[in-house]
Amino acid sequence: MVIQRPASLAKSVASVLRERLKNRYVNGGRLPSEPEIASELGVSRGTVRQALTILEREGTVFRRQGSGTYANQYVLRIPARAESAYEFTELISQAGYQASIQVVAIETTCMPDEALELMSLPPAAEALIVRKLFLADGKPAIYCTDMLPRSIILAEYASSELHQPIFEFLERRCGQTISHCVAEIIPEVVDETLAHLLDMAPGRPLLRFDEIGFNGSNQPVLFSRVYYRDQYVRFSILRKKM
Amino acid sequence: MVIQRPASLAKSVASVLRERLKNRYVNGGRLPSEPEIASELGVSRGTVRQALTILEREGTVFRRQGSGTYANQYVLRIPARAESAYEFTELISQAGYQASIQVVAIETTCMPDEALELMSLPPAAEALIVRKLFLADGKPAIYCTDMLPRSIILAEYASSELHQPIFEFLERRCGQTISHCVAEIIPEVVDETLAHLLDMAPGRPLLRFDEIGFNGSNQPVLFSRVYYRDQYVRFSILRKKM
Repeated sequence: MVIQRPASLAKSVASVLRERLKNRYVNGGRLPSEPEIASELGVSRGTVRQALTILEREGTVFRRQGSGTYANQYVLRIPARAESAYEFTELISQAGYQASIQVVAIETTCMPDEALELMSLPPAAEALIVRKLFLADGKPAIYCTDMLPRSIILAEYASSELHQPIFEFLERRCGQTISHCVAEIIPEVVDETLAHLLDMAPGRPLLRFDEIGFNGSNQPVLFSRVYYRDQYVRFSILRKKM
Repeated sequence: MVIQRPASLAKSVASVLRERLKNRYVNGGRLPSEPEIASELGVSRGTVRQALTILEREGTVFRRQGSGTYANQYVLRIPARAESAYEFTELISQAGYQASIQVVAIETTCMPDEALELMSLPPAAEALIVRKLFLADGKPAIYCTDMLPRSIILAEYASSELHQPIFEFLERRCGQTISHCVAEIIPEVVDETLAHLLDMAPGRPLLRFDEIGFNGSNQPVLFSRVYYRDQYVRFSILRKKM
C-alpha cells in the first residue's frame, strides 16, 4: 500500500531541486535519476516523482523521452516570472537596483465598487487603502495601491506597520496568509496623475496588474492595483497547452 | 514496488478532471477522494495524486487541510489564462466573438537581430515571416508576426498553408511540435503603423507578447510578436510563491 504523503513534502523537494538548478548546472543539465534523488534526499520515489511533476509543469525542467529529466536553461534564466508572487523590493533588487519604499497615502474609506464585486463584499464595505511607491536606485519603479476590507482587521495597529510589506500586516493583524493571487494583465498609458507619481512623461506605456489575493481557504482578502515601469520590471511567463 | 507511470498519464487524468470541473460544480466544489477518483478512472492512486498536484499547482483546485480537495471557482471562471497557449481564434471565440484570420504579409528575409540572439541562431540567418490579423466580429483584435528560421523548413509548401495556424505548418512542414513558449509581457502604445493595422487611435494602450516557441527537446523554433487589444482579449494569471 502506498502511504499518502502530504503535498507539502513534494513541494519542499521541488524547492530544494529548483534552488540547486538555479545555482549550478549539473552534468549537461541532466538531473540524477528518481531513485538517486530519492535516496539522496531521504524521501520516497513517489515524492520525487511529484516534485519533478511540479518542476516540469512550471517549466524548470523538461523530460526527454527515454533520456531523462533536464534543467530548462531558458526558464531558469528568466529574471522575473509573472507566475511568481515576488515582493516588490525583491523584484527591484533582482533587476540590479537598490530598492526602497515610499508611502504615498494611507486612508480608510469605502472599498471601490470594482473591488466589492471581485471580493464578494457587501455594498459600502469599508476599506483600508495603502498607496506606496517602490523605488529603484531612488527612482519610482512600481506604484501599488493595496485595498483590504476593514472587516478582516482583528487587532490594533500603528500606521508605521503599513510601511512594511502588506503581507506581513495581513499575517500579524488580520491572521491572514496570502496563498495565491489572480491578476488581470492590463496595458495602460500614463495619465497626469501617474506621470507625477512615477516621474514619467504622460502618454508612455505602463503595465497594470489588478490582483486579488486569496487566503488558504480561497477567500479573497486583498485587492491590489499595481503599475510597473517596463524599464525596471519586465515579466516573462511560461505558456503551454493546459 | 511502485511502478513508474509515464507523466503523460497523470496529465491525461488532470485534463479529464479539469474538464469536469469546468462543466459542473460537484458537491459544493469538493472533489471525490483519491481512491474514489482512482477506481472510477481505472488508474492508480499515485497517478491521481500526481494529477491533483498538477491541478493544484495551476490553481484549478486547492486543498483544505484535513478536509479535502476543492474546485477553485475563481480560477475556473478566468476567461483567458496567460499561462495557457491558446489558439488566437479560440481566444476570440471564447470572448464571445466570431473569429476570422486575415494574412497581412508573407516574406522571406533576414531574421531580426533580437530574435537571432533569443533563438541562438547564426548571424544573418534567413527567416520566414508571416504577419496576420485575427479579427473579432470582423474588427482587428490581435496582430501577430511569426518568425521562423528557414533552416527548419524541411518540405515544399504552398503559401496558402501559411493562412492556417503556424503550429500546423510547423508540424507538417518542419516536423516540429511546439511544446511550450516563453513570453515577455510588454506594455505598448499604439503608433501610426499599429493604428492603421488595428484600427485604433494612436496613443492607445496595447499589450505585446514577445514569445519564443520551443519544441519538446527545448530548442527554440519560433519567435512571435503579438499585440492584443485589451478590449477583446484580457489575460489573467495565477501567481503564487514558487
